[in-house]
Amino acid sequence: MTPHLEDLFSFLRFPSISTDSRHAADVRACADWLLAKLTGMGLTARLHETPRHPVVVARNAHVPGLRTVLIYGHYDVQPVDPLDLWTSDPFLPEIRDGRIWARGATDNKGQMMAHVLGVEKSLRESASLPVNLIFLFEGEEEIGSPNLASFLLQHRDELRCDVIAISDTGMVAPGVPTLGYGLRGITCCEAILRGPKGDLHSGLFGGAVANPAAAIARLVASMHDPDGRVAIAGFYDQVRPLETWEREMWARVPSVGDADFLEVTGSPGLFGEPGYSSAERVWARPTAEVNGIGGGYQGEGSKTVLPADAFAKLSFRLVPDQQPEVIMQQVKQHLERNCPPGVEIEVVPGHDGKPYLSDPNSKFGLAAQAALRAAFNAEPVLIREGGSIPIVQTFRDILGADTLLLGLALPDAQIHAPNENFPVANFEAGILLNQALLKELAK
Amino acid sequence: MTPHLEDLFSFLRFPSISTDSRHAADVRACADWLLAKLTGMGLTARLHETPRHPVVVARNAHVPGLRTVLIYGHYDVQPVDPLDLWTSDPFLPEIRDGRIWARGATDNKGQMMAHVLGVEKSLRESASLPVNLIFLFEGEEEIGSPNLASFLLQHRDELRCDVIAISDTGMVAPGVPTLGYGLRGITCCEAILRGPKGDLHSGLFGGAVANPAAAIARLVASMHDPDGRVAIAGFYDQVRPLETWEREMWARVPSVGDADFLEVTGSPGLFGEPGYSSAERVWARPTAEVNGIGGGYQGEGSKTVLPADAFAKLSFRLVPDQQPEVIMQQVKQHLERNCPPGVEIEVVPGHDGKPYLSDPNSKFGLAAQAALRAAFNAEPVLIREGGSIPIVQTFRDILGADTLLLGLALPDAQIHAPNENFPVANFEAGILLNQALLKELAK
Repeated sequence: MTPHLEDLFSFLRFPSISTDSRHAADVRACADWLLAKLTGMGLTARLHETPRHPVVVARNAHVPGLRTVLIYGHYDVQPVDPLDLWTSDPFLPEIRDGRIWARGATDNKGQMMAHVLGVEKSLRESASLPVNLIFLFEGEEEIGSPNLASFLLQHRDELRCDVIAISDTGMVAPGVPTLGYGLRGITCCEAILRGPKGDLHSGLFGGAVANPAAAIARLVASMHDPDGRVAIAGFYDQVRPLETWEREMWARVPSVGDADFLEVTGSPGLFGEPGYSSAERVWARPTAEVNGIGGGYQGEGSKTVLPADAFAKLSFRLVPDQQPEVIMQQVKQHLERNCPPGVEIEVVPGHDGKPYLSDPNSKFGLAAQAALRAAFNAEPVLIREGGSIPIVQTFRDILGADTLLLGLALPDAQIHAPNENFPVANFEAGILLNQALLKELAK
Repeated sequence: MTPHLEDLFSFLRFPSISTDSRHAADVRACADWLLAKLTGMGLTARLHETPRHPVVVARNAHVPGLRTVLIYGHYDVQPVDPLDLWTSDPFLPEIRDGRIWARGATDNKGQMMAHVLGVEKSLRESASLPVNLIFLFEGEEEIGSPNLASFLLQHRDELRCDVIAISDTGMVAPGVPTLGYGLRGITCCEAILRGPKGDLHSGLFGGAVANPAAAIARLVASMHDPDGRVAIAGFYDQVRPLETWEREMWARVPSVGDADFLEVTGSPGLFGEPGYSSAERVWARPTAEVNGIGGGYQGEGSKTVLPADAFAKLSFRLVPDQQPEVIMQQVKQHLERNCPPGVEIEVVPGHDGKPYLSDPNSKFGLAAQAALRAAFNAEPVLIREGGSIPIVQTFRDILGADTLLLGLALPDAQIHAPNENFPVANFEAGILLNQALLKELAK
């Protein structure tokens, strides 16, 4: 195994699941390992405490007159359940079929480590970097970066930069370099319905009192029209329509046709908002998704209860110019107004983040395209991303810098799902990309 | 503790959960204990194997010319989850506030043991019984008695009887003796929806493929009109309308008003089919209930997945003259026709049983009323039951005998739920009731 892969495997072995308090010590150990790695490379690195998981910042010796580039990544990962669907242990990385299999392999440890190792390589090759570099790595991305904005405010001066680069998004296909210039935002909540004071016998009481499991179904169903449009009042009011040039450009992007979506997801059929292609639905249209629904008997066989309560975990992907707070207000109002009779509703808001849009042909956008061309020896495509990196809009708000999204994830990377993986080739290309990017941005 | 309670506590300590294969040995041990108890009383008792859990049959020495009375009960119990809501261990019975707390305390071990101990008492007092008695106790009632009908067919001659008595239903209130003359039937199924081949990242794919958790919500919601009527085509076609005399009689039954239903269930409000009182909804109108719904992330916090599949466990309480097979056909057709696009549906049928209706003022009905009057020193009320004991209709079909439902359960017995309980007074009254019943039926 190459030293590059050895470093990545060490990094992947930490079960740094930020949402689960039982893994707090693992998140901390992962940050400590990262700090040691960056210091060992000759950077000045420091671990900063936050109310939950630490931020790690590292920099080279900055030289007046050089461009300052901030590279952001996150060392925390998503939970791993359902564990029984993993072919190998999510925290014992393996290479099979040219891919690295582990939780975090793509999101984000693999992509983040490519930047770290690209810098290490450049420093070995020429003792210095062509730019003033700042690495900013957090441990709370998967829980919505609750402490990063205040960290940026507190450290605004030392984090000042000309441009930001992040590899935490996707390539449309293997070998097709991809520059992202937009991201969806997000807002989340959980709706909890409470009925009888305890589970009831469905024979003795069924018919006379509301069933919270039936009520949560009716409530969730009310969020969409039968054709797939979100039915929450005002939801689309602030949505910026797709530009003609974008729709034409995206129609020519390879591997993002409807047939590709069907194949990658394995779904029995496509379904979504009428009037848009699958790529347009994911990159530029908002959604209301049920991430989890539950209530009543979950075990083997049957149990004729009328459950005491039921829940739905909901998330909404947002596009410019939707505002998370406005949407959450509309969602809350919709859920409360559509709550079926006979149950009580509680809406617990979750994390949120703004959508992001920038110009892919700006000065730095063109530099990113050149770096992608050099690293992959192919013409880059320009897309928006369906995922959310709320911190990107926060960077613009607080640091005043735009972000280049240089994604290395493949469509079948299985991020947030069992059997997450990352091609070794993408990892190695990511190291080259980092070197080319710093050179291009220095010009 | 009285010897009666000691016997009941021994019986309650067996975790005889029939639906859970891990408890098969406990069910068997419970049957063995029962066999020994009945034999020890001087009855001729035998344990009969079935494909799953055994049937225990016992009888006195039958005398030509005497009436033959079959008393049925079941020694299996429901699962106990959610376990953390129990105040005391479900299988370590305790007496608190004059009640026995344990799984099975009411349903059905407590009521069943009252009959056993009533017979033991009569045999001690007078060495013989006034009737030819058959005890028929099964271990599969809570899973729909899958093997009892074939057992009845095989043993039709030795089980021939004039009338059947069961204490496995409810009293409308403490101290109000209650004769049940009808039962709802039941049919169950599970609907499983399958979408993408694995859980997907809701940012990368949300909007382009159907979400099975959203689809199960839409499908479940389609089963009811917003006002609470079941919306499955043909569902009400065979429902026998309530008789005027029944509605008038029930309006005078104490403790079954809407306010009582609210108090007993602790629901925030009543909800059900328009045009009927709560008692009428439960005793004489059919339902479609969601016993469990699930899909996607169930843990702490949030996880932005688009789940691969989702399910709903459904049961339908039926009234005369609905036929379980016809209703299940209608349900299946409804679910398949209303399955949202982009997911595949599988409908797995479960157990079923016919509804039951008899004349409460028949010869044996009047005898039962007299026995209830004697045991409780109060005038009995005549009701139907919302629960299902499918075997009652099967008894009529195979043995040709009607069943007297002499329920001892209170409305807050918490059967099928945490903190199941049974008043000691009802247990003792049940013993007297058995003695009075055999005397009245002998006349």
